[in-house]
Amino acid sequence: MKTILLTNDDSIYAKGLKSLAESLKGLGKLYVVAPNKPQSGMGHAITIGIPLRLEKIQFMDNVEAFACSGTPADCVKLGVDKVLKMKPDLCVSGINHGPNHAINVLYSGTMSAAIEASIERIPSIGISLLDYDLDADFSEAQTIAFELAQKLLKQKNNQNICLNVNVPKKSKIPLKGFKICRQANAKYDEDFLLRKDPAGHEYFWMSGVFKNQDIRKDTDVYALEHHYASIVPVSFDLTNEPLKKKLTTLWKS
Amino acid sequence: MKTILLTNDDSIYAKGLKSLAESLKGLGKLYVVAPNKPQSGMGHAITIGIPLRLEKIQFMDNVEAFACSGTPADCVKLGVDKVLKMKPDLCVSGINHGPNHAINVLYSGTMSAAIEASIERIPSIGISLLDYDLDADFSEAQTIAFELAQKLLKQKNNQNICLNVNVPKKSKIPLKGFKICRQANAKYDEDFLLRKDPAGHEYFWMSGVFKNQDIRKDTDVYALEHHYASIVPVSFDLTNEPLKKKLTTLWKS
Repeated sequence: MKTILLTNDDSIYAKGLKSLAESLKGLGKLYVVAPNKPQSGMGHAITIGIPLRLEKIQFMDNVEAFACSGTPADCVKLGVDKVLKMKPDLCVSGINHGPNHAINVLYSGTMSAAIEASIERIPSIGISLLDYDLDADFSEAQTIAFELAQKLLKQKNNQNICLNVNVPKKSKIPLKGFKICRQANAKYDEDFLLRKDPAGHEYFWMSGVFKNQDIRKDTDVYALEHHYASIVPVSFDLTNEPLKKKLTTLWKS
Repeated sequence: MKTILLTNDDSIYAKGLKSLAESLKGLGKLYVVAPNKPQSGMGHAITIGIPLRLEKIQFMDNVEAFACSGTPADCVKLGVDKVLKMKPDLCVSGINHGPNHAINVLYSGTMSAAIEASIERIPSIGISLLDYDLDADFSEAQTIAFELAQKLLKQKNNQNICLNVNVPKKSKIPLKGFKICRQANAKYDEDFLLRKDPAGHEYFWMSGVFKNQDIRKDTDVYALEHHYASIVPVSFDLTNEPLKKKLTTLWKS
């Protein structure tokens, strides 16, 4: 029987995680190790200098579940080492409430959990729905999660597969399927709001508008705008190969 | 006159940041926006749902400096938008106390600040010394920081240059120079220690051994072992191009 580790960054109490477990329960034995509080925007943070706690909780029949005091990346590390005590056949993180396309992959706790699994050579999927609603309709994302989890479990030499999957918000237009994409070169234009607290001290709220200036048609943003789920295969090797070559020549090193 | 934004993840009070400012002060007008507390292991976390504070502090003559309540990535966003109110010519993050080579690039707050600058098309350097000592000898790292900052400021079309620089711990063997490298495929083997608190409840300490199984000679780990500073040009596009091609064929999408 296959073993699947589930996690997320919206906390173990989020609807998206429960929806994920429901969609995958036919594929193997599920374990959940997820944060005990929301950890959105946590990126690839890990907990250093503070001990971690695990608390067993009731989650779903036949699913062992633990709330963890750490970050999503901590959940994967601790889940593998102390809950499963072995590498699972697959790790799936999500279903996130809100997009993790384009540059969001770096800020996302959901994706960092999937990437952490990939570092351990565990095939992994991070999946997100473009809908922040706590009570969002996850049905199409559930179908995609099931299909991809099934594909990855069957795929030979799957240890280096890490997928960033985003699913359009449910609408009248049905999902057309999925596209294998590249990460769009799209980002936020930040604009911090300056306010004053009751004592007269200044504080700032981060605020920003997501802007896509990438005109290529094989990006995640493009696929999502055309009613496809986007799948970006992700690497944890950040080496910029063309720049490495260029600087080696320029700087003669 | 050139404008340089400095930050780090060890906090605005760390020796490494002061050493960095001393080494770069001849190159332009320096601004410091750095965390008001240590933020090691913060990865690319950003602060969502909590306001941010900036506090002007005395740092060094002719250097405007602000302690920020947020993460290293927040410091860059807020520094550009509200302190400089324009993009600097260069952003340098560090000098970090401890290594950010190989997979550490993902966990590192230092590198995430440099990467955040790169997302904004600001040329950037994250620089780390392989010495955790609070009072480490930063002299060789200072020389490298100065040389690279000077190179980047002079380089045409430098907007996409983001460098992960690591410098060996000061020893009797003098630094041999620098090498342009790739990120080594080296990571931690985690081993969580299980303990009990005074109330009898279990808790875990993250612990681990860094292991390099990458035998290539153009990696950062190899260069550092051979007394060179390692320079890995870094990209924020995580698309795994070979895997994208492979899955497009396999899954016919």
